Amino acid sequence: MSSNTFGTLFRFTTFGESHGPAIGCVVDGAPPLLPLSEADIQVWLDKRKPGTSRFTTQRREPDAVRILSGVFEGKTTGTPIGLLIENVDARSKDYGDIAEKFRPGHADYTYWAKYGIRDYRGGGRQSARETAMRVAAGAIARLILNARLGKVTIRGALIQMGPHRIDRSRWDWAEVDRNPFFCPDAQAAAAWEGYLDGVRKQGSSTGAVIEVVAEGIPVGLGAPIYGKLDADIAAALMGINAAKGVEIGAGFAAAALSGEENADEMRAGADGLPAFLSNNAGGILGGISTGQPIVARVAIKPTSSILSPRRTIDIHGRETDIVTRGRHDPCVGIRGVPVAEAMLAVVLADHLLRHEAQCGPIKRR
Amino acid sequence: MSSNTFGTLFRFTTFGESHGPAIGCVVDGAPPLLPLSEADIQVWLDKRKPGTSRFTTQRREPDAVRILSGVFEGKTTGTPIGLLIENVDARSKDYGDIAEKFRPGHADYTYWAKYGIRDYRGGGRQSARETAMRVAAGAIARLILNARLGKVTIRGALIQMGPHRIDRSRWDWAEVDRNPFFCPDAQAAAAWEGYLDGVRKQGSSTGAVIEVVAEGIPVGLGAPIYGKLDADIAAALMGINAAKGVEIGAGFAAAALSGEENADEMRAGADGLPAFLSNNAGGILGGISTGQPIVARVAIKPTSSILSPRRTIDIHGRETDIVTRGRHDPCVGIRGVPVAEAMLAVVLADHLLRHEAQCGPIKRR
Amino acid sequence: MSSNTFGTLFRFTTFGESHGPAIGCVVDGAPPLLPLSEADIQVWLDKRKPGTSRFTTQRREPDAVRILSGVFEGKTTGTPIGLLIENVDARSKDYGDIAEKFRPGHADYTYWAKYGIRDYRGGGRQSARETAMRVAAGAIARLILNARLGKVTIRGALIQMGPHRIDRSRWDWAEVDRNPFFCPDAQAAAAWEGYLDGVRKQGSSTGAVIEVVAEGIPVGLGAPIYGKLDADIAAALMGINAAKGVEIGAGFAAAALSGEENADEMRAGADGLPAFLSNNAGGILGGISTGQPIVARVAIKPTSSILSPRRTIDIHGRETDIVTRGRHDPCVGIRGVPVAEAMLAVVLADHLLRHEAQCGPIKRR
Amino acid sequence: MSSNTFGTLFRFTTFGESHGPAIGCVVDGAPPLLPLSEADIQVWLDKRKPGTSRFTTQRREPDAVRILSGVFEGKTTGTPIGLLIENVDARSKDYGDIAEKFRPGHADYTYWAKYGIRDYRGGGRQSARETAMRVAAGAIARLILNARLGKVTIRGALIQMGPHRIDRSRWDWAEVDRNPFFCPDAQAAAAWEGYLDGVRKQGSSTGAVIEVVAEGIPVGLGAPIYGKLDADIAAALMGINAAKGVEIGAGFAAAALSGEENADEMRAGADGLPAFLSNNAGGILGGISTGQPIVARVAIKPTSSILSPRRTIDIHGRETDIVTRGRHDPCVGIRGVPVAEAMLAVVLADHLLRHEAQCGPIKRR
Repeated sequence: MSSNTFGTLFRFTTFGESHGPAIGCVVDGAPPLLPLSEADIQVWLDKRKPGTSRFTTQRREPDAVRILSGVFEGKTTGTPIGLLIENVDARSKDYGDIAEKFRPGHADYTYWAKYGIRDYRGGGRQSARETAMRVAAGAIARLILNARLGKVTIRGALIQMGPHRIDRSRWDWAEVDRNPFFCPDAQAAAAWEGYLDGVRKQGSSTGAVIEVVAEGIPVGLGAPIYGKLDADIAAALMGINAAKGVEIGAGFAAAALSGEENADEMRAGADGLPAFLSNNAGGILGGISTGQPIVARVAIKPTSSILSPRRTIDIHGRETDIVTRGRHDPCVGIRGVPVAEAMLAVVLADHLLRHEAQCGPIKRR
Repeated sequence: MSSNTFGTLFRFTTFGESHGPAIGCVVDGAPPLLPLSEADIQVWLDKRKPGTSRFTTQRREPDAVRILSGVFEGKTTGTPIGLLIENVDARSKDYGDIAEKFRPGHADYTYWAKYGIRDYRGGGRQSARETAMRVAAGAIARLILNARLGKVTIRGALIQMGPHRIDRSRWDWAEVDRNPFFCPDAQAAAAWEGYLDGVRKQGSSTGAVIEVVAEGIPVGLGAPIYGKLDADIAAALMGINAAKGVEIGAGFAAAALSGEENADEMRAGADGLPAFLSNNAGGILGGISTGQPIVARVAIKPTSSILSPRRTIDIHGRETDIVTRGRHDPCVGIRGVPVAEAMLAVVLADHLLRHEAQCGPIKRR
Repeated sequence: MSSNTFGTLFRFTTFGESHGPAIGCVVDGAPPLLPLSEADIQVWLDKRKPGTSRFTTQRREPDAVRILSGVFEGKTTGTPIGLLIENVDARSKDYGDIAEKFRPGHADYTYWAKYGIRDYRGGGRQSARETAMRVAAGAIARLILNARLGKVTIRGALIQMGPHRIDRSRWDWAEVDRNPFFCPDAQAAAAWEGYLDGVRKQGSSTGAVIEVVAEGIPVGLGAPIYGKLDADIAAALMGINAAKGVEIGAGFAAAALSGEENADEMRAGADGLPAFLSNNAGGILGGISTGQPIVARVAIKPTSSILSPRRTIDIHGRETDIVTRGRHDPCVGIRGVPVAEAMLAVVLADHLLRHEAQCGPIKRR
Repeated sequence: MSSNTFGTLFRFTTFGESHGPAIGCVVDGAPPLLPLSEADIQVWLDKRKPGTSRFTTQRREPDAVRILSGVFEGKTTGTPIGLLIENVDARSKDYGDIAEKFRPGHADYTYWAKYGIRDYRGGGRQSARETAMRVAAGAIARLILNARLGKVTIRGALIQMGPHRIDRSRWDWAEVDRNPFFCPDAQAAAAWEGYLDGVRKQGSSTGAVIEVVAEGIPVGLGAPIYGKLDADIAAALMGINAAKGVEIGAGFAAAALSGEENADEMRAGADGLPAFLSNNAGGILGGISTGQPIVARVAIKPTSSILSPRRTIDIHGRETDIVTRGRHDPCVGIRGVPVAEAMLAVVLADHLLRHEAQCGPIKRR
């Protein structure tokens, strides 16, 4: 309900602007006695970190996280975990253009109109820089899931860049870490390199589609009617900067299916659990996890900060043009992958706690 | 945070099963002094009501709503509004098959596995019957929006049935009320009639895509970072029964756009407000409304209750087949249209109250 | 956060006015598979019911509760439990005086000033009639506590009526059900009979102090810093109609103690649990239950509806006098006893679920 | 609902332990465009700061607050305000005794039993050090109240120390800042000096009662039934470390009043507002502010950390004695005064926003 807090039982509250002294968050509700160190968080932050290839913003932020509270002798204590990342490379350049003009497609205008004031430096609170704290919270969420459920794997991939989709038959999770795009299709990754270089050199940008998958989630997570797992995942992914669409399982393609095609038939499986013959549901039925992998996709629009001049107005209502210089990602979807993974992780950790509150300890897979 | 409550300031809590004595809800947070009668709600319920054409379930429910509280001498008092609809046509037939077997694609299995118990009669709590209360809450949300913002129009349409899409160039809102599909394209509606008759006669079902549009919403609604308007709309629409995907504005198509194409350029408009030259944003930037129409789409999967036999298991883990008889919608997307409108309305009313709490009275368009 | 919802995980939402068609509530978050029938709730409602002696309002309400949802074949299903009580004896008398004049000490003025409208019939939403739903929710809370913790006993007593206190050395829980005051001191109860008859005949009213005690609560319930068990109990009890003070354990008397006196010393007890040598803490330290009995008291002011004329103003701001006729409790504290018990029960059930979500299954005593 | 977040619309989330690197909080929901600097907060922190007289702990903490976000060019932006205070004087002494033994009357045992782990250094999260962040949040709450309501005065006083009460006829707010006890009665303050010196020299401690008063609050704040202003104040004050009782207006004394005595009669006052002839209600009726001063009291138990040996057990369940050395307040009630003021301020600011969301801009007094 609060604007800057996410989650119900496992929840985190973030603060901080792109060019302020620091960004931070408070993670509340984590169980006690979880082993936790800064390294457990840093490994995920490093995946999202800017400046790791020529395809992301050249801002150099070490994104070194400090744990300020909630951990004692290497373990969580059940009290809130305060996390802080200092902003190191916030250039005190001239913001003249962005300060007064609204970038089309960006939230400049809406923040200004809503609040009557706007920290325009680097996008202020609108900046994707805030997502570092989501990744940090996601790291803790993963620990909770693993501690209570055994091995849970949550990973993401870029499956479309601009108009170019991967070939799903070539999907190889191992490829994801071998290219700068988190792309699971080696051939597509190779092709995207040239494509994105072209986009970047033109000062343009491009959209993308991210797919995230959670494996090892048992049947039973999700709280109908208004705390459905898929509804919460939809909010979590749609709340990522630049997201414009979210789908679960067959998603929009389900609209074109017949009831026969869509039904994921069931056979008796191991351990008394059903073996599903397909996963159009994306692992969720009636807002509750089925025990199959949870599969979600999020569409990311192209970066709004581009070099091509665009028609706009300024804060005085005057018509003008804008060209956005500075260090920007030509495809923000790339760095969105670890963010989407993190958001899926926090939703699942929250629902795990919610389920166990009402129904008692869940049966592991 | 509660499973059965939706919203933050304008909020409603529903209860009731498909074949229990009644369904109901409590609407909390409505401003005082709004004129409100049962007729103001009934008009919207009648749109969603089953049995209005051969293309929806033949269950006969008058869905007559009673206001039990919160209204005095024709006006809201600021106290909670209790609403009740009695279930009239819940046939006490033999549920033998559904009682023990899980319909593939339906939530039978997940409810049962989560809770260890399941009211299988008519789907119990999983049934789309619950959505009547969303429509009722939506009716009150509309009154709030109109009272505080002047004329706000929230309407929806079916834009795809199975694989068949409308031709957007033929979009005519007036058509929506002239066919049994809420279809804005008269030609498509005519074609769908034959298509859906075929589906229905085969005992099959089909999916659909709904588009909802809100006009008259001023700039400024939405509460970043974790109360973004689009994230809340995504949760609201994804929480509708059978929803598998949600998108805002250009949606998934935005992934294929360049930054230049995607940017909705601005010119100086009337009243000092910007005139946008396009609406790829779907009326939302950075989680905050832009003042343009808010445009969202939701993909609805085909009904899982079909006559074709499907392979499944039963509550004892035994393999079996299932054929679902009974009165079912061949395309639940149709009756989803008024539900999607209602969910958009409640999100907007909630965010209006949230905005005014923090920022004071909003400027009307 | 919602005005009419209480609790976090175990939560209930009430609606209804004193003289409307019905009052009701939705209980959300109850675990599945709890045996539950209307009789389990009715037994507690009957304790609170008006008209059981000459010392309570003579309004005749059977307060017969109906379960509308959430129970299937005698067991909870994990879905929301809808409860309804029809108002039977709401006399359609002339409300002229109360309709326009504000009773001093009553919420007439504040409701009217806040909302600009007020259902004055029988006090509308301000009426203590709403507390029937708290008792209903409390009945379900007790079932949860017993199911998860073994035998939990939550009971209350009137320990002061007007200026007359009980003698604690004569405390006998068995006496509570033997007199019309829920008084644990037989001698005090006898004396109060004459005292309250005098108050009643004068058309006056008197205040009271209620004590509630929960036994069988293990160590560990409570969620510091802002979900402390004592803070939540304080809110729960202060939210009862006419409450003006709340204390835990030694309460206000603790202010006069030295550190040595206040410290509840500990010895090794059975089962590895500590044996406390006193209970000034009232069973709560640092916002967390200690395993000792939880002891709280709530001060109830005298009923504001009295026959003696009081100076007041009317809705037009004119000075006038008011005499409140009608059927009122001369000491609302009496019927407050089952309400205070219920509020303690719902807080404990909520915190039990909250604890188990974060920390896993609690060790029973 | 979260353990470490307070408030609904104006809300803050705290983190940090007594001897960790820092304590901090995130203040969310503050309106934009409020002038805010660190000095606006520091002035209140300095009132609560330890080490200002011989009657408080001798720990030397400058409690210098840094604003990390949410303020731009001297004004709030509507985004979350991150605040940080570094712990400077956390002595790395030997904690041997406290590490393994439970102080009777302290939360050592309950934290340990609840979480299975406990940061014992300086009391960890249980420490009253956390209350610095409440004072910081309270400073911002005051700015909101003043900005929207005109001059609101919220101030507190110590009205009882140990068994010694002030003489209310000598109440002088100006005295509060002239003695080290926030005592409004100069004679009492003089007497307390000797009394507390005695307590301190014996290594003992004493309890206290704090009274807080808010003036300038208009009629209408408070959200019945479960968001009553008095219930929220009760939770806010009972949640202060060492609090054992809370009362509003006449409080526990109301139990002994007759209906005639308790009724605050009304006459026509200035500006069409009522003039109340008394204030037994403490400014709240039916959970809604009346426009009179809001008056609340909180009882604080004596500090549990004392030099006299007390019988206790250790974490292995063995019987032992404990003597608590270190720097402790002999009367924590003293430094509780600015904390209680702050908690009253945050509740009022939150309810102001809640009221305006539902009912529109409030009429100023």
